[in-house]
Amino acid sequence: MTNNLYVYNTLTREKERFEPLNPPFVGLYACGPTVYGDAHLGHARQAITFDVLYRYLRHLGYKVRYVRNITDVGHLENDADEGEDKILKKARIESLEPMEVVQHYMNRYHENMQELNLLQPSIEPRASGHIIEQQELIRKILDAGYAYEVNGSVYFDVIRYNETNHYGKLSGRKIEDLLSNTRTLDGQSEKRNALDFALWKKADPAHIMRWSSPWSEGYPGWHLECSAMSTKYLGMQFDIHGGGMDLLFPHHECEIAQNMAGYGQPSVKYWMHNNMITINGQKMGRSLGNFITLDQFFSGDHDLIDRIYPPMAIKFFILQAHYRSPLDFSNDALQGSEKGLLRLLKATGEIDSLQPGPTSSIPVNDLISSCDKAMEDDMNTPVLIAHLFDGVKWINGLSEGRHTISKEDLVKLKSLYHNYVYDVLGLTKSEAPDPGKGITGDLVEMILQLRSDAKVNRDFETADRIRDSLTSLGITIKDKKEGADWEIN
Amino acid sequence: MTNNLYVYNTLTREKERFEPLNPPFVGLYACGPTVYGDAHLGHARQAITFDVLYRYLRHLGYKVRYVRNITDVGHLENDADEGEDKILKKARIESLEPMEVVQHYMNRYHENMQELNLLQPSIEPRASGHIIEQQELIRKILDAGYAYEVNGSVYFDVIRYNETNHYGKLSGRKIEDLLSNTRTLDGQSEKRNALDFALWKKADPAHIMRWSSPWSEGYPGWHLECSAMSTKYLGMQFDIHGGGMDLLFPHHECEIAQNMAGYGQPSVKYWMHNNMITINGQKMGRSLGNFITLDQFFSGDHDLIDRIYPPMAIKFFILQAHYRSPLDFSNDALQGSEKGLLRLLKATGEIDSLQPGPTSSIPVNDLISSCDKAMEDDMNTPVLIAHLFDGVKWINGLSEGRHTISKEDLVKLKSLYHNYVYDVLGLTKSEAPDPGKGITGDLVEMILQLRSDAKVNRDFETADRIRDSLTSLGITIKDKKEGADWEIN
Repeated sequence: MTNNLYVYNTLTREKERFEPLNPPFVGLYACGPTVYGDAHLGHARQAITFDVLYRYLRHLGYKVRYVRNITDVGHLENDADEGEDKILKKARIESLEPMEVVQHYMNRYHENMQELNLLQPSIEPRASGHIIEQQELIRKILDAGYAYEVNGSVYFDVIRYNETNHYGKLSGRKIEDLLSNTRTLDGQSEKRNALDFALWKKADPAHIMRWSSPWSEGYPGWHLECSAMSTKYLGMQFDIHGGGMDLLFPHHECEIAQNMAGYGQPSVKYWMHNNMITINGQKMGRSLGNFITLDQFFSGDHDLIDRIYPPMAIKFFILQAHYRSPLDFSNDALQGSEKGLLRLLKATGEIDSLQPGPTSSIPVNDLISSCDKAMEDDMNTPVLIAHLFDGVKWINGLSEGRHTISKEDLVKLKSLYHNYVYDVLGLTKSEAPDPGKGITGDLVEMILQLRSDAKVNRDFETADRIRDSLTSLGITIKDKKEGADWEIN
Repeated sequence: MTNNLYVYNTLTREKERFEPLNPPFVGLYACGPTVYGDAHLGHARQAITFDVLYRYLRHLGYKVRYVRNITDVGHLENDADEGEDKILKKARIESLEPMEVVQHYMNRYHENMQELNLLQPSIEPRASGHIIEQQELIRKILDAGYAYEVNGSVYFDVIRYNETNHYGKLSGRKIEDLLSNTRTLDGQSEKRNALDFALWKKADPAHIMRWSSPWSEGYPGWHLECSAMSTKYLGMQFDIHGGGMDLLFPHHECEIAQNMAGYGQPSVKYWMHNNMITINGQKMGRSLGNFITLDQFFSGDHDLIDRIYPPMAIKFFILQAHYRSPLDFSNDALQGSEKGLLRLLKATGEIDSLQPGPTSSIPVNDLISSCDKAMEDDMNTPVLIAHLFDGVKWINGLSEGRHTISKEDLVKLKSLYHNYVYDVLGLTKSEAPDPGKGITGDLVEMILQLRSDAKVNRDFETADRIRDSLTSLGITIKDKKEGADWEIN
């Protein structure tokens, strides 16, 4: 298996040639959602980025095991006003059950990812399902001397770790700077140092999610699950770890420290991070009122958006920026993307009906090579898409007879567009804008053309019969100057 | 909250009035799939039975927490031929990973259940995600003296348990009979008695799925997960436990024993069991070659089935038998059901366009009362459906002007059909037979008629153009004597 793929490794701050540890196998881990709320544009960008990477690596011929976790260990508490006695007296069925909340949002997340036409990961492990594995890692870190127990909680000792390792190597920070930027402990904390982070927390009485452990009834610290689950399913060393840039520090920094401390070796060869999304130039945030969920985009139900945006439009909008570039949402930008997507899908569909000629007047091999190079250059989807749009002009030229293409080149052209548009980018016709149209729309357009031909031939009987037949199917025709418009009732 | 619902309780062998422990809450637990293979008709029957119960209880106004587990602790082994050394040398990513198999079949199961239009359970806990809870229950059973440890495995002591309890109370068996029907131990077994069952098994070297425990690196016995997870999410006592009759013994019998031994009280108020499905009179089994998966039904891809059966046809076929009756699959029976379903859905849709008159010539209140009574009588869906078919005749009579209905009765009739057909039975229009056709099919037929007209008029240019246009939309036409056949590629 050879490839010319280069990926930007956050760890080295360089584009590096991609060489998997155990070819043809590739281990890919990406941080998944916390399932206590609906997915928003940021979730979509992260999931789409690593879905395209997964698809692309498979396209290159690798056997990829793609692991994306579900963070379901949450911090729901029983209503404090009720008092502990009352909570204990309640039947289990009457009480808030975090797993019911988790199931609800996990199902919704899956639906959203399906709407975006993302592939299902090979394994989708849940933090709550790996408490034993997390406890075992804590044990190892304690045994290695990089953690300490206080009152039933266990903390990672960052200062001690930094004596022999570099805490901050991923994010490029120095412990001295981190320390001087950190508030000093107020005496209430159990931690020895403000930089220390929890591996295990003793649950206070109101905390609902809890498991028994050697230290206390409690729950694992958030950073721990990714170390434990990536190791379980991909091994102590694996190829790629992905996530949003917001997870780089402290989450991924802590993951590296946990793996080094517990297993004595660095875990990840290539760290990859996608950039964030802003809304009209502003950071997204619940408090800013610009927190738009995917469902709100798909239904058009938010003050900041002008209308319904189908999932494929959102996806194409995201792919038109490089994953490491910031991306700003605006209605104008999204509507522009949507139009572009339609053009690309239409042209891709039209390749099937092109007829070959004796020679090619268009440089198909150059186009293929440009597309391949774009993806090999750190998965540069906007450049790929720009090249595909160059090809769209030629496809239109071929349809209109302004260009010719040889039989061999036509096969290549078709395979290029099918591979990149459908397989690698994962764009679909059926989920394309104008829901309810698609093939039905094409058929209606075809019928309207036949009716228009009949009128030209002054065959009004046929024209009227077509109108009546469409009406009986619930399709209304409105004749206009420039042709007929229609809608399904 | 009052109701007149009676359910057959396997435990008492009687129909009992349904009185929940903590109204308006109802706790419902149903055994879910083992995700190491595709779902078949038996899985569908069980899932449909308890989906309808869940929907019906919600329809009656209860707040139902519906828990359906995923059995994902399996018995995959590394290839023994490879030898342990080779297995240990392999990189994790190169080895078979049970969770990847589990994820694959779990996803497929979810797709199948969605195709059958089943509601998602409130919580879908996985056995592998509840190892700690299972270990805690083992601890309790050991402490109570109803289990013993041998060489790292823990077994439930059935004889000891039966001294103070009745092992066999659910299935109506006596321990003396069970003992005399059981092969004596061959001296190889660690068990004290052949009836004893494993709570924890020490993993042999080839066994891949394993967790640390106080007794050994191993895995929980199969019966344990349902006791641990139902208790965690529904409490030590809950209302309804459902499953297929094949699970009654030993699975549910063991569950009862585990709960009594560990928590000192019976767990379930109503045990409900659906009957099995036979295929042309024979029991289903992989070795008999009559093991038809749901996907095979949906795609028509099995020697024993004549053609594609859409999910709703399978579902309606199952609902036309009472859940406690045996049900025999045959192509004839299924095709009969399919026709009936279409009639019922068509009539239900037609109610919307009925016009009220001054009085009713049909006894709507009697119909409502008959339907309600059918469901109250241990969820008698075939009787309910028979009454709904009586109503279909009236609806058709109303459409044709042979009957009249008052405004008030029309509202009631519409709500009756919407409630039962759509909400309680969960039948859907969109998933009705003829997938991929519907309006698209009507439009294609219309175009083919126009093409046929063109041919009659010897306008072959138009006829050919129509064929080419359809081909470019991925629709293939096959001209036959009696007209043209077509399919979407």
